[in-house]
Amino acid sequence: MLFRIYNTLMIRTLSSKAVDFAGREIRLNGWIKIRRDHGKLIFLDLRDRDGIVQIVVNPHISEEAYKVVQELRPEFAVEITGKVNKRPENAINKDLLSGTVEVEATAIKILSKAETLPFDMGEAKLNLELPTLLDNRSLTLRHKSIFEIFKVQEEVARAFRKAAEKLGCTEIFVPAISASATEGGAEVFKVKYYDYDAYLTQSPQLYKQIMIGVFERVYTISHAYRAEPSVTTRHLSESVQLDIEIGFIDTFEELLDAIELVGTSIVSDVSKNCAKILASFGIEKALIPTEIPRLTLKEAQEIIYKFSNGQRDCRAEQDLNATDEKLICEWAKKEKGSDFVTITHFPTKKRAFYSLPDPKNPELSLSYDLLFRGLEILSGSQRVNDYDQLLSIMKERKLNPKSFPMYLQAFKYGIPPEGGFSFGLERLTMKLLELQNIREASLFPRDTERVDERLSNLK
Amino acid sequence: MLFRIYNTLMIRTLSSKAVDFAGREIRLNGWIKIRRDHGKLIFLDLRDRDGIVQIVVNPHISEEAYKVVQELRPEFAVEITGKVNKRPENAINKDLLSGTVEVEATAIKILSKAETLPFDMGEAKLNLELPTLLDNRSLTLRHKSIFEIFKVQEEVARAFRKAAEKLGCTEIFVPAISASATEGGAEVFKVKYYDYDAYLTQSPQLYKQIMIGVFERVYTISHAYRAEPSVTTRHLSESVQLDIEIGFIDTFEELLDAIELVGTSIVSDVSKNCAKILASFGIEKALIPTEIPRLTLKEAQEIIYKFSNGQRDCRAEQDLNATDEKLICEWAKKEKGSDFVTITHFPTKKRAFYSLPDPKNPELSLSYDLLFRGLEILSGSQRVNDYDQLLSIMKERKLNPKSFPMYLQAFKYGIPPEGGFSFGLERLTMKLLELQNIREASLFPRDTERVDERLSNLK
Repeated sequence: MLFRIYNTLMIRTLSSKAVDFAGREIRLNGWIKIRRDHGKLIFLDLRDRDGIVQIVVNPHISEEAYKVVQELRPEFAVEITGKVNKRPENAINKDLLSGTVEVEATAIKILSKAETLPFDMGEAKLNLELPTLLDNRSLTLRHKSIFEIFKVQEEVARAFRKAAEKLGCTEIFVPAISASATEGGAEVFKVKYYDYDAYLTQSPQLYKQIMIGVFERVYTISHAYRAEPSVTTRHLSESVQLDIEIGFIDTFEELLDAIELVGTSIVSDVSKNCAKILASFGIEKALIPTEIPRLTLKEAQEIIYKFSNGQRDCRAEQDLNATDEKLICEWAKKEKGSDFVTITHFPTKKRAFYSLPDPKNPELSLSYDLLFRGLEILSGSQRVNDYDQLLSIMKERKLNPKSFPMYLQAFKYGIPPEGGFSFGLERLTMKLLELQNIREASLFPRDTERVDERLSNLK
Repeated sequence: MLFRIYNTLMIRTLSSKAVDFAGREIRLNGWIKIRRDHGKLIFLDLRDRDGIVQIVVNPHISEEAYKVVQELRPEFAVEITGKVNKRPENAINKDLLSGTVEVEATAIKILSKAETLPFDMGEAKLNLELPTLLDNRSLTLRHKSIFEIFKVQEEVARAFRKAAEKLGCTEIFVPAISASATEGGAEVFKVKYYDYDAYLTQSPQLYKQIMIGVFERVYTISHAYRAEPSVTTRHLSESVQLDIEIGFIDTFEELLDAIELVGTSIVSDVSKNCAKILASFGIEKALIPTEIPRLTLKEAQEIIYKFSNGQRDCRAEQDLNATDEKLICEWAKKEKGSDFVTITHFPTKKRAFYSLPDPKNPELSLSYDLLFRGLEILSGSQRVNDYDQLLSIMKERKLNPKSFPMYLQAFKYGIPPEGGFSFGLERLTMKLLELQNIREASLFPRDTERVDERLSNLK
């Protein structure tokens, strides 16, 4: 398809491409990041979606441009025409893609003005407290140290889709409004749905399982809602969840293969395609061995006990806590050269009702967590796929089968052995960049205190 | 990454690959679609994610398999081992990828049983009323004529992402919980959000515009919620919306280029990658000329008047109705050899507050709809990007600026000329396959009467 050209304007050049036009005139679009007055010469850092380019404004070259530049402040959106000049060797800026050139302005046009910024956006790091960062989200997202988080997030989603397609999954789109609380529990948001009460789904779990009967293998990116009343650095009220579900598995280990494939593919793609960003966040290259160590919870607990020289004894516990996750990952790194470790066989009663009890020992479930550098990042299980077993587990757990009509319908008609896993997009983004708070990994985080604005402002 | 092999089982073969194993033994997984008793021989149609393969069960080959097959009914999930035999020339089934072979069963294992089906799933079309189709959604989705709709839907999403990336857009993830009704109006769902009232967003509009200041060009796939109380064949309460927003545009026409690129790319990719499905739905190949005809609303109205020989006169109206959209598309097909037509310059007061009034005539807005075969499928506009103009329009429209704090914040800091567009995934899927009702194009449609179950069952 041919794009039509309507105007006689010079075509816009992106900052990263300026180097290709040395000696020629180009037109740039972007925002003023910094203006530096050096007596007669004025320098601008212009930001566009590809990076930064330096502009020099010289009244002897263009009196007009020099006049306009007096008015410019940070975040003004502008169009700048100028000649690309090579910089002398000693003035090359290696941090910029355009660092070997600068653009000598012949004309500057203001496209949209900006108010005076409430804080300095010109530094390499934004030294603001989180509430201030979020109160001014529309502005602070423009800072490199912030928006790069979301370039990594975009890559996580892209890598996930690539891995899911490699596994033969079909992409599905599932609803977030549900007639009942998806997995039981009280932490649900209630919606006034016409004359009825409905709820926001806590996960796409039940829908992706239904779809096993249709496509065998599916993936979905959806929203998960948790009315978690406590404030922590690891929970959001609304988050993006990425899910995979795989049918006709022959062995439990096939599911471990799949979760490890997806987890390591994402980390590996991000390492490769966001290498510069990871470096600027001080993140080391991940260790991904050919075989990820796999441990049952019990084995992991024994190792933690020995590895900590008896300092930490979690052998009687039902799960790993944050300290245990760190310790077992330290062990995996030291002993197996791996930043990943897979833990299996968590107690059945600690997992969701659809987790399959191990036929050899029903107290333990065929469940698994994938840990990365001290944090569980993906989690899942083989599922109960027999209709009668599902019904009897629901009864044991005091779940009303009538609340799951569409889900149970699927299992009446031959759902084969299957399983899956999921992860939170913000949680994984946070971990990949070692952010302190999950809110930093959400463009517009929702929690008990904030929906864009602080909720207390609304009362 | 190497997959580990744990079992000595023969690796599973997909139905479409059976032809590669003529003369050899393979293992298949799938669901019984049809069982046909031919006296001594029993034939099965086995469905897996890739298609159908015919199984023949002969007691002289395997008495065991012949015994198991007696028990099989439609939708039983099974594992079948058998030898791939070439079919005689006159028995080749050209409708199947596996049509040149059949598999002679040596062993059949039931993986999961199915209850007796409430209706026949063996026919090429499912002759069920829509309510029955939806009441039994977990089952009916397994019918080829139904699940293929969602293979097309998957391709629409894939094509959209491809086109958006071609335009240089960054993928963003935006929230669906909002502190106020996104675009004003009463048709919003209210959520009990901790101690506050919140709403489900009607579109990601405001967030994608904010992100112009960050990434210049963005795309997002999100959910849109409309508490539309009326029952129509074209509305869902929850739908999937695909959005693009593009900053630093030089001309209005750049936006028309972009919407046409995205619209035609999707139709073209679906035509190419889902050709068989389109054919089975009786859909003709789309006419996509190099230049899509572009008309202002006024021009379109004049053409409709003339083209209908004065039978239809909408020249005094503010919009095109369903009949007008059909007529102008008939004209475009006949006169311009195009299944697409772009209509621009709708009255400002008929479009959302963020649509930019045409500076040459503020009564009309710089808005556009892309029509395809008689239906508007994508819609958008250039936006008001000046903070003061935005405030004054909000006041005129009696919108309270305090309801849009994060949105207005973005415009305080230099948002350049920009615009965008969006479309509903279900609506476009419906149109591409000429379905009668939008509910057919949603896996689990939500409307005034249904959230999986009929709501009346819940009272």
